[in-house]
Amino acid sequence: MQLWCTENQTEYLGLTTRVKETLFTGKSEFQDVAVVDSYQFGRMLVLDGVFQTSIAEEFVYHEMIAHVPLYMHPNPKRVLVIGGGDGGAVREVVRHDSVEKVEMVEIDGMVVEAAKKYLPEISVAMRENHPKLELKIGDGIAHMAAAENAYDVIIVDCSDPIGPGEGLFTKEFYKNVHKALKEDGLFVQQTESPFYHQELIKKITKDVKGIFPIHDMYLAYIPIYPGGMHCFTIGSKKHKPMDTDLTNRQKLETRYHTAAIQKACFALPQFVQELIK
Amino acid sequence: MQLWCTENQTEYLGLTTRVKETLFTGKSEFQDVAVVDSYQFGRMLVLDGVFQTSIAEEFVYHEMIAHVPLYMHPNPKRVLVIGGGDGGAVREVVRHDSVEKVEMVEIDGMVVEAAKKYLPEISVAMRENHPKLELKIGDGIAHMAAAENAYDVIIVDCSDPIGPGEGLFTKEFYKNVHKALKEDGLFVQQTESPFYHQELIKKITKDVKGIFPIHDMYLAYIPIYPGGMHCFTIGSKKHKPMDTDLTNRQKLETRYHTAAIQKACFALPQFVQELIK
Repeated sequence: MQLWCTENQTEYLGLTTRVKETLFTGKSEFQDVAVVDSYQFGRMLVLDGVFQTSIAEEFVYHEMIAHVPLYMHPNPKRVLVIGGGDGGAVREVVRHDSVEKVEMVEIDGMVVEAAKKYLPEISVAMRENHPKLELKIGDGIAHMAAAENAYDVIIVDCSDPIGPGEGLFTKEFYKNVHKALKEDGLFVQQTESPFYHQELIKKITKDVKGIFPIHDMYLAYIPIYPGGMHCFTIGSKKHKPMDTDLTNRQKLETRYHTAAIQKACFALPQFVQELIK
Repeated sequence: MQLWCTENQTEYLGLTTRVKETLFTGKSEFQDVAVVDSYQFGRMLVLDGVFQTSIAEEFVYHEMIAHVPLYMHPNPKRVLVIGGGDGGAVREVVRHDSVEKVEMVEIDGMVVEAAKKYLPEISVAMRENHPKLELKIGDGIAHMAAAENAYDVIIVDCSDPIGPGEGLFTKEFYKNVHKALKEDGLFVQQTESPFYHQELIKKITKDVKGIFPIHDMYLAYIPIYPGGMHCFTIGSKKHKPMDTDLTNRQKLETRYHTAAIQKACFALPQFVQELIK
């Protein structure tokens, strides 16, 4: 028997990958949670049937969602991660010497437990209770509504805008992100594929531009996400991507992010520029 | 009934897309040729079961394989395209005012005829017998072996290195490309995905570095190709990517390529840099 796990990336498009075995399945209060061991990508986290991350290529997403905003800020000390239940984002955040504390608010404890058990490479900072990390299982929307002038960088490492991630793509949420940031703070959010989610990206862009003086977008190649092209939206109160100066900054060993990519990832194809005009 | 067309991108990975109807199937001397009409991408060319190009996203590949090398050369007049049977590469090449003549050598006449009939938007320069275009149905390898000091830019727009494309990935072929180029000429070749074809890319890199003083690589997001990350290898006798100056160059209306992307596409992720070290 051959087992293939297929994600319906759109109504008309599927990515299918052969599976050695299913390591975990569960139904949390919020979603179906699964970890499969695939031939192509090694162990993969699958939420509501959507491929979230995998051992083979998780470095792209996690490096890019963490290092790009952290380097954009000249001295990030306090960081908040919303979502990111697999632990990959906080694993990268704690590597920055400037960071004193990272709070992480993930709504689904089952994702955290599955990642700790089956994705130890990704969840290492959570598993080992990294001293900089304060992990809370709870509602990121409520946390954001209560926070004020508290963070240098906020990372919204959410799943798709259906299911538990839905409320993280609203104007009200972005207003609270703005309030939760310090006066020169900035935030990043994964905002899906410019090939396939154009209406969503237009809406997010309009909302973020209405609230933050600086809006921008960058891209990364993520092979398990639709089209391989994934975009990240930046809202910033003061710092601009092109002002980033890495000359005297801490150098990190990475597999994707480089000093050149820190800027090159903001060079958007013409059709993407038009989406966010 | 639902029809889905699936490409086995690797042994363990498939991309599947729903098809409205099959417009053409044929068996040429070289390969299975098909054109299907898909819901996601519109009409698609499929050779030996591998997705080649589609109406929805062909602009990425064709702009990037043509404009990046043409802009790297300060004054490209004579261009050779090997392969490129759908006509998309030459459609972009003839837009450059500096280009006086583009020769195209495609081995499979059935691909050209299918593209002319079913992909008129892509094949327009071939269909309308553009005055700059000299189209030859024949063997690109033999053409290259016979050419000397003839071209400013050579574009190797080939299919995968199995089947008719195989001989376009050998050291002997690259030696002939070098010989066919003028003294400041350069060539580009599509060289598959850095996620999935690492051994091939290492071999090509070694071969091209052994023959050309300047070797480099650039990337583009191509949603129908494995992983969405596609790489293009450059071999150049004189001109370097970072020396490209677009200040006084012709501006073209595009959907992907921009002046910023002309340079940013050469910013390679760390793991890709290590592949081509």
